[in-house]
Amino acid sequence: MKFVTAKREEKVFVGVVDERSASVLHLREAQKAMIGKAIIPITMIECMEQGELFLQQVSDVVKWAREQGQAPGLYPLSDVKLLAPIPRPRKNVMCIGKNYSEHVIEMGGKEDIPEYPLFFTKAPTTVIGQDELIHSYPNITNELDYEGELAVVIGKKGKAISPESAFDYVFGYTIINDITARDIQSRHKQFFLGKSFDTFCPTGPFLVHASAINQPSCLEIETRVNGEVRQSSNTSNMIFDIPTIISVLSQGMTLEPGDIIATGTPAGVAKGMKEPGFLKQGDVVEVTVEGIGTLRNTVK
Amino acid sequence: MKFVTAKREEKVFVGVVDERSASVLHLREAQKAMIGKAIIPITMIECMEQGELFLQQVSDVVKWAREQGQAPGLYPLSDVKLLAPIPRPRKNVMCIGKNYSEHVIEMGGKEDIPEYPLFFTKAPTTVIGQDELIHSYPNITNELDYEGELAVVIGKKGKAISPESAFDYVFGYTIINDITARDIQSRHKQFFLGKSFDTFCPTGPFLVHASAINQPSCLEIETRVNGEVRQSSNTSNMIFDIPTIISVLSQGMTLEPGDIIATGTPAGVAKGMKEPGFLKQGDVVEVTVEGIGTLRNTVK
Repeated sequence: MKFVTAKREEKVFVGVVDERSASVLHLREAQKAMIGKAIIPITMIECMEQGELFLQQVSDVVKWAREQGQAPGLYPLSDVKLLAPIPRPRKNVMCIGKNYSEHVIEMGGKEDIPEYPLFFTKAPTTVIGQDELIHSYPNITNELDYEGELAVVIGKKGKAISPESAFDYVFGYTIINDITARDIQSRHKQFFLGKSFDTFCPTGPFLVHASAINQPSCLEIETRVNGEVRQSSNTSNMIFDIPTIISVLSQGMTLEPGDIIATGTPAGVAKGMKEPGFLKQGDVVEVTVEGIGTLRNTVK
Repeated sequence: MKFVTAKREEKVFVGVVDERSASVLHLREAQKAMIGKAIIPITMIECMEQGELFLQQVSDVVKWAREQGQAPGLYPLSDVKLLAPIPRPRKNVMCIGKNYSEHVIEMGGKEDIPEYPLFFTKAPTTVIGQDELIHSYPNITNELDYEGELAVVIGKKGKAISPESAFDYVFGYTIINDITARDIQSRHKQFFLGKSFDTFCPTGPFLVHASAINQPSCLEIETRVNGEVRQSSNTSNMIFDIPTIISVLSQGMTLEPGDIIATGTPAGVAKGMKEPGFLKQGDVVEVTVEGIGTLRNTVK
């Protein structure tokens, strides 16, 4: 099940995408046609907060819509604007740094491979969706960089989560591009500022339910700039895997539905190249994660 | 004007405190009695978003209430529970690290005095109010520390704010205690994790409007543990002053009403003592900032 947050006629809704038919089912509209009222909430976070009830309703509505053929609420993807799955997170996006050895080495050296995971955040104001423009801030930074990443979205409140039960708290997966102003990042030491300029967190386009991803710890991940492959790896190369990340993050901090945790970026960022290929105006950056899709944004 | 978010009979409201009479005016109740309806919003963030309209209404309501003597909505402070002024921020609390030279020296050395401000964040789930308990997480940390700080609360949306106009974006000031698990902080390099355990951000009790603080850059600040003075300084000792902090933070990131920016802590934290006096169960930590008040919390 691929969920989207989308906009049609200026109204935001949660939908389920069928890529083969390039269509999206507006869940509330379809549910209303099916049972006379819409119980499915308007925002993705509220949907996740409904837990099993939400998934059961989606399953019923999707089944019903299939039987109808041209169901109410079924639109061509080209008729809607996709937003980030969670357009405005309720807290900063959480990110793990230095989580792929090859990337750590390209940014410094082997001695920087962390013994413990390091976490930083990006402001909620950084989040943009598919095809939205990444601002380049030419007056502030000369080192605009990309970082393609698999992101975990939490679906259930939890604290002190054991690695063994970590996946019970995952609603699904999406893609983020952890855009970074490298010069600001290194000048200010802590990562927050150089990673928190508006538009620095392209996210989506799909939020894929966990049940549709068999092996989140074994997914191909690739980042391209103007079609040129820059990053190509597999999530199996993470130093700290998803259960470890969730467990360590939640040891003292409550995780909540809608929390986004980016799992780190593989080697191949601009800063790590012999001649750094930093992003410039007009560049198209695409991040593809196996089973999820491709997140595409252009630099303004 | 000292604003509070408080709770009475399980209902949360925004009030204005009069310390001499130890009373709080429930703004919506008083406004309703005065003009027949309550236009002042329920939450502090919504109030700030109203801008000048909010301040004008407060001024009218407070004036009217004074004239009434025992006005509707006027309660003894002892009859309400004070919450954090913004009990659930809409994004992480932003903090500046290493912003008092003496503190930088006690934590390392003169060579660590930063050339550029460093920023990190604390999760919104860390925020607690006056007299709420700080959890000590004895199974996770052996180095529970305090950091008394002046915090700025943003009242107006802005980006690329110049130092000269920075104060136009400040709604007011409060106090935070940036509780930190030092061992977790240093083990995980980036500060976020060791500063983001639930209850690690006591805030308040008052949000003092900017008009009531003549010189935010010259306020005495003191932290006591069980009555013993641990930190004693003045906000004039900040390396990066409030206009600089706001300007640098907003260069690429939009600041929004309700954003909380902690301005750093002076020397005297537990970690910096010859025999570190880390917090333990039963300890009472108080942070006093001149013109604002005293934030008091006990360690559980």
